Amino acid sequence: MNSRQNKTRVSEFSLIKKYFAPFASEGAYNLRDDAAEIIPTQNTSLVITQDAIAQGIHFFEDDPPKLIAKKALRVNLSDLAAKGAIPQYISLALGLGNSWSEAWVADFAKSLHEDCEVYGIELTGGDTFATGAGFVVSITAIGELPYNQYVSRLGAKPDDVLYVTGNIGDSAMGLFARQKKFKALSSEDSKYLINRYQVPQPRVELSGFIQKFATASMDISDGFVGDLQKLCLASGVSSSVEITKIPFSKPVLSLFESESNYLETALTGGDDYEILFTANPADCIELEKEISILPFPVSRIGTINSGQGVKVFDTSGEVIEFDKTSYDHSGESR
Amino acid sequence: MNSRQNKTRVSEFSLIKKYFAPFASEGAYNLRDDAAEIIPTQNTSLVITQDAIAQGIHFFEDDPPKLIAKKALRVNLSDLAAKGAIPQYISLALGLGNSWSEAWVADFAKSLHEDCEVYGIELTGGDTFATGAGFVVSITAIGELPYNQYVSRLGAKPDDVLYVTGNIGDSAMGLFARQKKFKALSSEDSKYLINRYQVPQPRVELSGFIQKFATASMDISDGFVGDLQKLCLASGVSSSVEITKIPFSKPVLSLFESESNYLETALTGGDDYEILFTANPADCIELEKEISILPFPVSRIGTINSGQGVKVFDTSGEVIEFDKTSYDHSGESR
Repeated sequence: MNSRQNKTRVSEFSLIKKYFAPFASEGAYNLRDDAAEIIPTQNTSLVITQDAIAQGIHFFEDDPPKLIAKKALRVNLSDLAAKGAIPQYISLALGLGNSWSEAWVADFAKSLHEDCEVYGIELTGGDTFATGAGFVVSITAIGELPYNQYVSRLGAKPDDVLYVTGNIGDSAMGLFARQKKFKALSSEDSKYLINRYQVPQPRVELSGFIQKFATASMDISDGFVGDLQKLCLASGVSSSVEITKIPFSKPVLSLFESESNYLETALTGGDDYEILFTANPADCIELEKEISILPFPVSRIGTINSGQGVKVFDTSGEVIEFDKTSYDHSGESR
Repeated sequence: MNSRQNKTRVSEFSLIKKYFAPFASEGAYNLRDDAAEIIPTQNTSLVITQDAIAQGIHFFEDDPPKLIAKKALRVNLSDLAAKGAIPQYISLALGLGNSWSEAWVADFAKSLHEDCEVYGIELTGGDTFATGAGFVVSITAIGELPYNQYVSRLGAKPDDVLYVTGNIGDSAMGLFARQKKFKALSSEDSKYLINRYQVPQPRVELSGFIQKFATASMDISDGFVGDLQKLCLASGVSSSVEITKIPFSKPVLSLFESESNYLETALTGGDDYEILFTANPADCIELEKEISILPFPVSRIGTINSGQGVKVFDTSGEVIEFDKTSYDHSGESR
């Protein structure tokens, strides 16, 4: 039963002590206990989310462990940001693939530790185990926000205004760039896109803003159009978006000029980790004033209407049709 | 990147809606949101733990999904019980192996749902993804206990008395029985042992008892001797245990009569999911009175002393030597 594929004879116990205990939370007893205690702040709610990433699906076997660690963490922080929560704790289940080594674990842990410091997060514990196959990283993240301030994706109302952070499609194009699909792309643009694919930038600075203004909010992880459809379905509304308002980076815009239908890739590919949110039109003036203090762009891209469905209008006012609307990490398009 | 091994064309979205949303927590919006809200009860602490189980390491590919679900949940509830916490929520990252089907997911979810009802637990959310290899189930469990009542494994003091729940070694022998290693074992005994291996019985009824009496506590998951060593190391103490006091089931006792050194297997094999705890000797009279109300046995097996190490004494007062003291699920003995 016990698959002895490990190349080094280092134990789980010593790996944890050496690489993970240094960023353990106070209630985690240096990761020497079975569990950890979390003492909630009064009058707050906790927000919990869990996203796992697996080799061959979300990352490549030869991706540097430091990038895998950042991605595993940041996809979860993106979910917390979308709910208006401030990240506080993570728990980590680290499934070691057959090719693991102590150096791999050391690089992974060092990078996770660094990112936890950047985002003010502590590790409560978790588990390390051999998968017998590829690497799997399952992080559960917990954030906090004032009681009654949680923002779901169910609250959008007709006439609400639709906003999005950052640029759309960088990651989907970054995956293609990683696969060397673009012959004419400059190395600078390629580097930008691959970095956007490999290292998500969770919009944690948006949390207070979301608490204050958003009627509905979600992170975009499976493709802009499909995720907007999910928000609309959950809220029982429809949405109209103008293509000219959707923010694209210069490298992505340059790729749109090629023959392939990269516009569809950008609008329906995965891993954006930007935030899609709606706001009451009465709040928009104040909201748009406050956007300027954020360290990333926030774009007003469309409106929420009654009815069902998502329509993206092109420059001539025609509705754009998509073959598929999102990327399914479980292995199927939908 | 997207490994399209799935045999059925059912989406992650519909799997979640159909099989997992029925036991979602109130703050999880029927699992349609990115995350879930947890509103902590006043003056309580939360206890968080995360244990993952993987095909080939913790279970076999052909194990029924309903048993895999129960095991994945219960190994986490065992940790919560050891800390004195009452289980409340779980988050689930379900890594689907190449052989998955909708029927597999349906059986898994139905069994998890049933167990969640048995233990009074709700699902906050999680993630479903293809692993590209075997199944991996990563559950994060959250429990609650009164503020300041958390019991770590670090609090054992010299002269404390050592207790253990249930029987030791059933699961290690159950794994061997599952592998058909015992030719002479009766089918009834074999069934008992395999069931103990496949379906852990987390001692959740012990939580209040642990809060009230335990100075240190942990669950035994990697082998009795090795886990007792960990408790002693964490508390800075040593321990003496008499073999005659350690509780073994009749099937395990009958196997001790064969030629192999199954005593060592029983005392150092994994997956017991019993609770090892210490108590102040001044509390033992009251504690032992209250034991009778518990639905499982609790045995007084030894004492805590100053110094380091664990000694298990045989019937003639000699210290038993072990080749290895525990089972390492990461793939190495230690």
